[in-house]
Amino acid sequence: MASFRLALIQLQVSSIKSDNLIRACGLVREAAKQGAKVVSLPIHLFDIDVPGKITFQESKILSPGDNFSTFNTRGSVVQHRIADGSLISCAFSVVTTAYCRVGLGICYDIRFAELAQIYAQRDCQLLVYPGAFNMTTGPAHWELLQRGRALDNQLYVATVSPARDDKASYVAWGHSTVVSPWGEVLAKAGTEETIVYSDIDLKKLAEIRQQIPIYNQKRSDLYAVEAKKP
Amino acid sequence: MASFRLALIQLQVSSIKSDNLIRACGLVREAAKQGAKVVSLPIHLFDIDVPGKITFQESKILSPGDNFSTFNTRGSVVQHRIADGSLISCAFSVVTTAYCRVGLGICYDIRFAELAQIYAQRDCQLLVYPGAFNMTTGPAHWELLQRGRALDNQLYVATVSPARDDKASYVAWGHSTVVSPWGEVLAKAGTEETIVYSDIDLKKLAEIRQQIPIYNQKRSDLYAVEAKKP
Repeated sequence: MASFRLALIQLQVSSIKSDNLIRACGLVREAAKQGAKVVSLPIHLFDIDVPGKITFQESKILSPGDNFSTFNTRGSVVQHRIADGSLISCAFSVVTTAYCRVGLGICYDIRFAELAQIYAQRDCQLLVYPGAFNMTTGPAHWELLQRGRALDNQLYVATVSPARDDKASYVAWGHSTVVSPWGEVLAKAGTEETIVYSDIDLKKLAEIRQQIPIYNQKRSDLYAVEAKKP
Repeated sequence: MASFRLALIQLQVSSIKSDNLIRACGLVREAAKQGAKVVSLPIHLFDIDVPGKITFQESKILSPGDNFSTFNTRGSVVQHRIADGSLISCAFSVVTTAYCRVGLGICYDIRFAELAQIYAQRDCQLLVYPGAFNMTTGPAHWELLQRGRALDNQLYVATVSPARDDKASYVAWGHSTVVSPWGEVLAKAGTEETIVYSDIDLKKLAEIRQQIPIYNQKRSDLYAVEAKKP
């Protein structure tokens, strides 16, 4: 399959976990109905910010099966966690779906070019960063970082933010986005709760890599980006 | 000195080398008169495109001294060459001026994140890419690449294009640009012959690195970007 539909659930995350889960399930079902084959949920779905101590703790990516209500415990669901909540780029998590290889990062991870470079070396075609930039870093860096990662590594990049809640202790920028391997924005949410859809076209990805063949032209005799742990 | 003025000479490059040199000298003198302490000349100043065989051959960066007419042979001038004209990222050239450390790349080099990452490791505060993107890659990637390099490595990035000549066999995009370590465009030319000025503020660079301390937070236990030759 050369192309599949990705959906990003830009959920309005509340402090009531059970409510979040019920609405997330409804939106995942809706995304599946619209033909989405891979769905990503936002950061902060299960754990709400504690003022003064932002925790980037949990996010999920899943390939929707028959029963989305069980996505929290199914083996097909990848849990991606930074246990201590510190703002440090995390270890590598690659998910192989039926459609492509997906590299995962959380939020601040997107600032670390190395993570994306290593995912590209590991044949990822899509990077997904559930994240919540704020009202300063959002307008300045949110889109720039994902377009840069996409273009430099010639792969698709998606970011999944919670919807904006101006009354929250941490106000998320919103604007969940999908960027092509050419660095162009394919789909972008506003600030409200919504689902972002975009077709991930692996044939187009291959064409772009042929047009500008930077991977064949990297000077491995001069430099290398190396992962030190598997 | 925490701040100095950079000038980029967006020269209208003709096929007459002596004419290029005379006008370049005039513009460098003008830049110095306006307080520029570091000046960069564009790509293609000395060698004009051969149709069908684009050569990215020569560019210069110089710290203007007393006598600009001799910049072609002075020891303070760095010559940066890809001998065979191939579109391959080049070896590393760091210039230490009186004001900061400058990493040099030519044109297509800007597509290779590793070059900029290694320059940042080597304490460069400014990267200069004389280059000439075309009318396809220019609008799509010219600004995005330099903003990405600047933000990822938290340093200043400047690109220096020839002015646009719609009758040339290779039509350059123009738009020589200076980008801050925050990823914001500080100054940007149009398409015509002009000088772009921007203040390079090393104090501001240090502040940005404190605000978002990605360098201290890189996980050297998990990954590394390494130069294989000095």
